[in-house]
Amino acid sequence: MSMKHRKLFAAFLLSTSIILSGIAMAAGRDNPKPLIIQEQGSFAVGGTVVKHPGTYDNRNFNNWNPIPEGQTYHGDHAYVFYQIPVKARKLPLVFLHGAGQSSKTWESTPDGREGFQNIFLRRQFGVYLIDQPRRGKAGRSTVATAIDPTPNEQMWYDIFRVGLWPDYFPNVQFPRDAESLNQYFRQMTPNTGPFDLELVSATTAELFDKTGPGILVTHSQGGLPGWYAGIKNTNIKAVVAYEPGSYVFPEGELPEPMPSLTGDLSGRAVPVDDFMKLTKIPIVLYFGDNIPEEPSEQLGAENWRVRLQLGRKFVDTVNKYGGDATLVELPKIGIYGNTHFPFSDLNNVQIADLLSDWMKEKGIDKYK
Amino acid sequence: MSMKHRKLFAAFLLSTSIILSGIAMAAGRDNPKPLIIQEQGSFAVGGTVVKHPGTYDNRNFNNWNPIPEGQTYHGDHAYVFYQIPVKARKLPLVFLHGAGQSSKTWESTPDGREGFQNIFLRRQFGVYLIDQPRRGKAGRSTVATAIDPTPNEQMWYDIFRVGLWPDYFPNVQFPRDAESLNQYFRQMTPNTGPFDLELVSATTAELFDKTGPGILVTHSQGGLPGWYAGIKNTNIKAVVAYEPGSYVFPEGELPEPMPSLTGDLSGRAVPVDDFMKLTKIPIVLYFGDNIPEEPSEQLGAENWRVRLQLGRKFVDTVNKYGGDATLVELPKIGIYGNTHFPFSDLNNVQIADLLSDWMKEKGIDKYK
Repeated sequence: MSMKHRKLFAAFLLSTSIILSGIAMAAGRDNPKPLIIQEQGSFAVGGTVVKHPGTYDNRNFNNWNPIPEGQTYHGDHAYVFYQIPVKARKLPLVFLHGAGQSSKTWESTPDGREGFQNIFLRRQFGVYLIDQPRRGKAGRSTVATAIDPTPNEQMWYDIFRVGLWPDYFPNVQFPRDAESLNQYFRQMTPNTGPFDLELVSATTAELFDKTGPGILVTHSQGGLPGWYAGIKNTNIKAVVAYEPGSYVFPEGELPEPMPSLTGDLSGRAVPVDDFMKLTKIPIVLYFGDNIPEEPSEQLGAENWRVRLQLGRKFVDTVNKYGGDATLVELPKIGIYGNTHFPFSDLNNVQIADLLSDWMKEKGIDKYK
Repeated sequence: MSMKHRKLFAAFLLSTSIILSGIAMAAGRDNPKPLIIQEQGSFAVGGTVVKHPGTYDNRNFNNWNPIPEGQTYHGDHAYVFYQIPVKARKLPLVFLHGAGQSSKTWESTPDGREGFQNIFLRRQFGVYLIDQPRRGKAGRSTVATAIDPTPNEQMWYDIFRVGLWPDYFPNVQFPRDAESLNQYFRQMTPNTGPFDLELVSATTAELFDKTGPGILVTHSQGGLPGWYAGIKNTNIKAVVAYEPGSYVFPEGELPEPMPSLTGDLSGRAVPVDDFMKLTKIPIVLYFGDNIPEEPSEQLGAENWRVRLQLGRKFVDTVNKYGGDATLVELPKIGIYGNTHFPFSDLNNVQIADLLSDWMKEKGIDKYK
């Protein structure tokens, strides 16, 4: 938002001391069985160190104004919170969020039910939740940025396919109370530095040096760095992508950019040898409902129409090279109303069941 | 850092693909007993909604450039992650971090041991970890801000009393390996909007409407909003403050600003009736080591010298009005070498024992 916009801004602040009734308690009630966690913790992974030239002088400070001479700045790392249940399965799940989100994506749902973090802990998977570099608790960026509170939530409501603002899609798997929408908007959190595909894919890949062999689960914008991470680290034994934003293709086989109302969607070309690494592991993509085949005048429909269609090409290309990629379009298997966040939608246990079944089918859900 | 500084910046990026050997595994090894969690989850609390005038038009978008007309922006909430163990004690612990930190403060220590999150879960306390408004996973701020990667870690090293850079204090309770320092620096995360005392205290107080009666544990900059929260919500049944940054005093009794090399330290005046609310609950303050009585030329010593001395005045004033405040200076009870982060120092189990003993003495550690 420009300064001009901001000055025109007859912004009124609505106090939202809304009664957050019962959210904290909801998860427990639905799942009276306790989680039994062998260990949990958090750490930073990857990143760089900037060092300013000169010599730090302990006495050279001015109140709280930093004097950078000889000082360092650690940034561009990812932050990871992990929990390992007792009797865990061999391969943990590593979750990478999408644009404007953090690891919160995988925690409690907007209406306070359990998200994939808890659901898969209960199913005896180790769970690692990433805040990508320059997001959430991994906020230190080596690149300066401006954060601007531009009102844009109606756009996100449309793009996330909750409905066509202010309406909900008639079949939508999203709770319709005001407090759930309040929580949904508040789980967004800004970039504290520019989104950097290489950084996100590198830190995600590096995390798997720590976890050992595991399964990467991505969402949306996390999809593209997820494919690159799968190329970079053979400890990634499978990739699960919920509505990925884009895709890699072998050099020479990159599809033409796909025009849409939200811009031209392009994949990325990678060397054939790199692409081949994605043919060695099982891959599954899930897409929700209300995505049309034909061009639309709706923002969300239009945004995901091309990403779904490019996803089909990606899956076909992986399989053409001998890989094992599956694209699940939920409405085509009779599951309706899912938004861009199937893993936190009202039917997220059913969505988790699909993933469990797929992991079982691929033999990647075994115990140690 | 100014543009000039940045241009002069012969910044070299040191890849820190350091082997993070064994951090993830350390916690579990030291504590083979699993955590048994009745429920866990996360949610936003408090905050405001900005609404831009005009009417949102679903078709009026330009690629990904937001058009704010008629759109909303939810910001200035806190983010909270909570875990409730089975057979929990009656009063949970609610943790509020300090400047430049997030809820990470209370999680794994820089060397991968268990922090207060796990330690007090094991002692059967419910644990709520706050990311204050405009920090960490509560990044959406209604006020614009610029984030600038100014190298300042040597200053923080000194202020956090790890030592006098590049030396460690001889008795310091901080691990001396390079990777621990790397992790320590990476747990810092920037403000995504200006620090706002009223916002932080209001959301902290509001959280206690959700948790019910509980105990507030603050650190450093979180100290001052902690006193205000204690005034605002009678569900706060005790306040524990690790090296608080400042204090409240009854109107008419505000001490003169205390000069130091890091600036003049001022308390805040509150109405006597408000101050009296802090005399109705037990309060304890903990200060670590290497804080001198006399003015010093060292940044960390100087910063905490006045905050400790003002803390003594605060405690005296609370007690003068019939309250129950205790100030524990760790070296005076034979515990040496603690930094500004006693709860994650090498002796943090001993520090936790002190807190457990204090809560027992005050009768606030009872089971339901």
